[in-house]
Amino acid sequence: MISFESDYVQGAHPEILRRFAETNLVPQPGYGFDEYSASAKEKIRAAVGLDNADVEFIVGGTQTNMVVISTMLADYEAVIAAKTGHISTHEAGAIEYSGHKVIELPSKDGKLSADDVRRYLVQFNADESRVHMAIPGMVYISYPTEYGTLYTKEELKALADVCHEFDIPLFVDGARLGYGLASRSCDITLKELASLVDVFYIGGTKVGALCGEAIVFCKVNKPVHFLTSIKRRGALVAKGRLLGIQFDTLFTNGLYFEISRHAIDMAEKLKSIFAEHGIKFFIDSPTNQQFVVLDNTFIEKLHGKVRFEFWEKFDDNHTVVRFATSWATQDDDLKVLEMALDEIR
Amino acid sequence: MISFESDYVQGAHPEILRRFAETNLVPQPGYGFDEYSASAKEKIRAAVGLDNADVEFIVGGTQTNMVVISTMLADYEAVIAAKTGHISTHEAGAIEYSGHKVIELPSKDGKLSADDVRRYLVQFNADESRVHMAIPGMVYISYPTEYGTLYTKEELKALADVCHEFDIPLFVDGARLGYGLASRSCDITLKELASLVDVFYIGGTKVGALCGEAIVFCKVNKPVHFLTSIKRRGALVAKGRLLGIQFDTLFTNGLYFEISRHAIDMAEKLKSIFAEHGIKFFIDSPTNQQFVVLDNTFIEKLHGKVRFEFWEKFDDNHTVVRFATSWATQDDDLKVLEMALDEIR
Amino acid sequence: MISFESDYVQGAHPEILRRFAETNLVPQPGYGFDEYSASAKEKIRAAVGLDNADVEFIVGGTQTNMVVISTMLADYEAVIAAKTGHISTHEAGAIEYSGHKVIELPSKDGKLSADDVRRYLVQFNADESRVHMAIPGMVYISYPTEYGTLYTKEELKALADVCHEFDIPLFVDGARLGYGLASRSCDITLKELASLVDVFYIGGTKVGALCGEAIVFCKVNKPVHFLTSIKRRGALVAKGRLLGIQFDTLFTNGLYFEISRHAIDMAEKLKSIFAEHGIKFFIDSPTNQQFVVLDNTFIEKLHGKVRFEFWEKFDDNHTVVRFATSWATQDDDLKVLEMALDEIR
Amino acid sequence: MISFESDYVQGAHPEILRRFAETNLVPQPGYGFDEYSASAKEKIRAAVGLDNADVEFIVGGTQTNMVVISTMLADYEAVIAAKTGHISTHEAGAIEYSGHKVIELPSKDGKLSADDVRRYLVQFNADESRVHMAIPGMVYISYPTEYGTLYTKEELKALADVCHEFDIPLFVDGARLGYGLASRSCDITLKELASLVDVFYIGGTKVGALCGEAIVFCKVNKPVHFLTSIKRRGALVAKGRLLGIQFDTLFTNGLYFEISRHAIDMAEKLKSIFAEHGIKFFIDSPTNQQFVVLDNTFIEKLHGKVRFEFWEKFDDNHTVVRFATSWATQDDDLKVLEMALDEIR
Repeated sequence: MISFESDYVQGAHPEILRRFAETNLVPQPGYGFDEYSASAKEKIRAAVGLDNADVEFIVGGTQTNMVVISTMLADYEAVIAAKTGHISTHEAGAIEYSGHKVIELPSKDGKLSADDVRRYLVQFNADESRVHMAIPGMVYISYPTEYGTLYTKEELKALADVCHEFDIPLFVDGARLGYGLASRSCDITLKELASLVDVFYIGGTKVGALCGEAIVFCKVNKPVHFLTSIKRRGALVAKGRLLGIQFDTLFTNGLYFEISRHAIDMAEKLKSIFAEHGIKFFIDSPTNQQFVVLDNTFIEKLHGKVRFEFWEKFDDNHTVVRFATSWATQDDDLKVLEMALDEIR
Repeated sequence: MISFESDYVQGAHPEILRRFAETNLVPQPGYGFDEYSASAKEKIRAAVGLDNADVEFIVGGTQTNMVVISTMLADYEAVIAAKTGHISTHEAGAIEYSGHKVIELPSKDGKLSADDVRRYLVQFNADESRVHMAIPGMVYISYPTEYGTLYTKEELKALADVCHEFDIPLFVDGARLGYGLASRSCDITLKELASLVDVFYIGGTKVGALCGEAIVFCKVNKPVHFLTSIKRRGALVAKGRLLGIQFDTLFTNGLYFEISRHAIDMAEKLKSIFAEHGIKFFIDSPTNQQFVVLDNTFIEKLHGKVRFEFWEKFDDNHTVVRFATSWATQDDDLKVLEMALDEIR
Repeated sequence: MISFESDYVQGAHPEILRRFAETNLVPQPGYGFDEYSASAKEKIRAAVGLDNADVEFIVGGTQTNMVVISTMLADYEAVIAAKTGHISTHEAGAIEYSGHKVIELPSKDGKLSADDVRRYLVQFNADESRVHMAIPGMVYISYPTEYGTLYTKEELKALADVCHEFDIPLFVDGARLGYGLASRSCDITLKELASLVDVFYIGGTKVGALCGEAIVFCKVNKPVHFLTSIKRRGALVAKGRLLGIQFDTLFTNGLYFEISRHAIDMAEKLKSIFAEHGIKFFIDSPTNQQFVVLDNTFIEKLHGKVRFEFWEKFDDNHTVVRFATSWATQDDDLKVLEMALDEIR
Repeated sequence: MISFESDYVQGAHPEILRRFAETNLVPQPGYGFDEYSASAKEKIRAAVGLDNADVEFIVGGTQTNMVVISTMLADYEAVIAAKTGHISTHEAGAIEYSGHKVIELPSKDGKLSADDVRRYLVQFNADESRVHMAIPGMVYISYPTEYGTLYTKEELKALADVCHEFDIPLFVDGARLGYGLASRSCDITLKELASLVDVFYIGGTKVGALCGEAIVFCKVNKPVHFLTSIKRRGALVAKGRLLGIQFDTLFTNGLYFEISRHAIDMAEKLKSIFAEHGIKFFIDSPTNQQFVVLDNTFIEKLHGKVRFEFWEKFDDNHTVVRFATSWATQDDDLKVLEMALDEIR
């Protein structure tokens, strides 16, 4: 059955599979010392416009967040995040497993505001009992957010300014970074983003890869002995080529951006279909995840025709559900959905 | 200078020092196997009305919270607490250090409501992505709260009912338990409290001891190999008599309750003095901690006359400060304060 | 250049890549709920001969060890391992990162003896200060060991008996399990192994997969809420199909065993070549990893002709190096090595 | 009954109790900011001969080891210790609880040799797979050792030299430091020790205090935000005066050294008594802990007359037991023991 459940319901972009086959018998050192990883790092450095960026590959998103946050924070530090942030809600306490507190601030449309962050930091520094408190040591945001929304360049700059002022790094979870950059509402380039923030990752799993996220340390700030630190967190893969080949492919001839643009085009069509069918949006998302509010009886009818994901209860009779597009979404898939909506109406 | 900064600015109740001297040369086994600890446990079991309660002594409050929570939670579990709870704010991330998330719910007057807890648990259980979330495995409250307020018996019962319904333990941080029970607003007895909750601790440090908290496991629910677990958290003292003697003294002839009543009597007089001087209360606290809102220029004048504690900023011109009474507060201390207030007015 | 550095220098068995391509567009749920994972689990249950075994897939070996050990041990427990065991030496402290001690016992040829384990456990139980010691809660062994050696069925049974006697699980790290089972010295079947031990994993990464290890919980002993526990350790992959497809392929038509037999055949030929060239074996290994002692000047000459791995210093003039075979090793590769050895001689 | 079980079977030196009483009503800030702690730190700085030493007080020994080691090590580092070291054996895995591995090296008479440490470090640095290993980041020794033995000045200097050469700190567990320094075999002064090592602690609990250990950071190397780090480990006491008063007393008029000398005098007499009664020493200890090998039937007869501690099984018919002296040991106690031995003979 056609599925809009998420952007990870299918395999990898075919070009990645082709490259797997092509390189399969070439012997390469393990643990990320293969030539594909080296090439991929070089291409990513070029794409982000930072010659001295350190690039490291990790298998999954939660793992990446845990690794980056726990290796960059000092023992006594905590990370500030939106209450709706992925690390606050849907990582099963992975940051806490690593020993660090997530300081959850309120968010609007999934976004953390620079003003709220500054207010927290000012109050913290003025608090005479701060020696008894977890010390804020990083700000975490997602771009796009967990609700598909985007920070404007100005908002990002404001957050970066606060972080700079208080001398703590700004970390961007880019699990769906491509979809953010390809959005018609996006007013920032990858290079601009990389120049603003301290560390971010370029999501692969949800943007055409089978797995893999590329961490970019932007300011010569990769933690020392990083490889040993990720090894002890179980995050070092023996066949590093698995990640290297995928990112080398994604960053050859702009494939990463092409995939992203395609998914955004499909998402825009999806939005039109919802609008035409009078379906209410839960939030105005300019990226590949669309959240709509459906009547529960409507949902029951739609089940069995297309797949989508439960997001959260809206009220006793309505539910918020998510539809996502990806590199693999086809016009035909949208037609199936359209027909299904027509039938139910 | 007279100090109302906290209830831990002086040493121990003199009777404790007398018992230290009296028992000093009696050889005793270490690690809590001394006869004083045994006697203290017996007296506490009688005081809480539970013959089969397991009682264990720990040096400090943050340590106790960390030990109880991290030994009672399963790997994948988190603890629910008020956003203003001690473990949420003023323990420097100790619970997270032990690997567990604190799920912070809103509070009113420092209290967590059974309704909010139930709502959270119901939503959690209905959430299809709950497998990706830290699983709520305990509810933590403080009695009295961090703002000196008290749960009514009905409120406690409602919380216990929710916990029972969802099969998770209710843990009460009783760092200042005595002051709560001695309050004129208290409508519950120690025995009633012990019968309602699953585990709690009886604070010593802030109620007349030099150090020490007595954990009471109410339902034959002490974690197995508890001694080994506290040892590896650095919480096992070699001279367990240090804790045993203190609690044996506090629970002989009702000293713990006498100390608490005295502090409450002093707190009531303190409140009258504030009221007579037109000083605004930040919150209506029926226990030994009083929070008042003072003009910043007033605060400057008061400094140098008596000591008190900064609590939090109220607005640009006012600050919330704390005054606490204890076993050691004397009528003369209150007179010094009264005179200081008179002078400033 | 031809490489014998390890069994993870090349990609995946071609059949795996073919299955990736074939299934690529089929939409599937994430997080291991895909049909390929379900099918793979079913096939593995059949292969191990345990209808009620729980099978779970994890990306890498260190991660698997950390996940299994830390979710099966209680807070106060430690794991017993050989001093030469992978978790003792080459996992950068991953078990300790999870909070648990590795109790390192002496080993012979990489193997832990049942007698040594029993002696340790008997002494532990007789030690009056054991309450101050990490409590042994699991025995970890590798099959084959880190030196390529194999436990006999009798040795495994003896270890299982000790574990059973002391009521702690026996965990087998099977990163190279296939090569052990295919060895001409192996006297145990996969089913017999599965019936003896409590939990083990079937290595994929080093036996033809791009990544992936299959944990088999043999005795209805999978930790509860296991998915949440692995999520918080960063070990849950979104596209679970990545692991499911690979193991489904490996356990279709006996591919896993075929790959393993091939590598062993190649290893036997490798051994003959070494023997014919008068090269001294460091240890008598019946599996795919061969450890030989080479003169340092010889090593320098061999560099540039074929690749192999430094293992450890033997003496000032000699070094132990490792040659490994795999699914991808070809007769032609062995010929290149033979010619290289001929040339140097 | 007279007890030689340990040096912590009685309370505190009477002078400490006197000071508790004397200072009891003086209000003081909490958390170590009291004037007694300040005074004690000043006196300890003078005693160790380091004007810029940072001194911090912690309640217990295991806690101190865990705090010092886990705050001084980087994420990826491990601590080297003797296999018989306290952190290796009798702290229930506290170092591992904090996430770090204890690298256990062989020991002789409880001592770690500089040669063994250097060999380990040299091999580590030469190991091409060291990126997969926990990186040695500290050397831990006990002075006196767990067997009562002492390092010579030369041995300590050799260890310090190795540590200096490899740029890692040398940490000395001085739970019984006083007894080491007062030993007739000791060839080093406190000031010399402090100038050699990087961090050490001066044990209080076992040398006359009710509790408390004084950490001395010798080289302006106290970890930043140390107070917050100990708070989150549950190691910060509210009434810091408890520790401050005790150490201020111990370091006034040389009480710490007087206590220690007394215990050593008693230990020497104890040794003479054992020698006269033909009792075999397990190890030649020049400090307050004496380990003797007794026939099991002899032990049964001695039970009921005096108390002593089981240490370890020697053979089927003999057991190693420990007798310890302390500030509280009296000549009369020794007479009781002597009579008991006479009776049994």
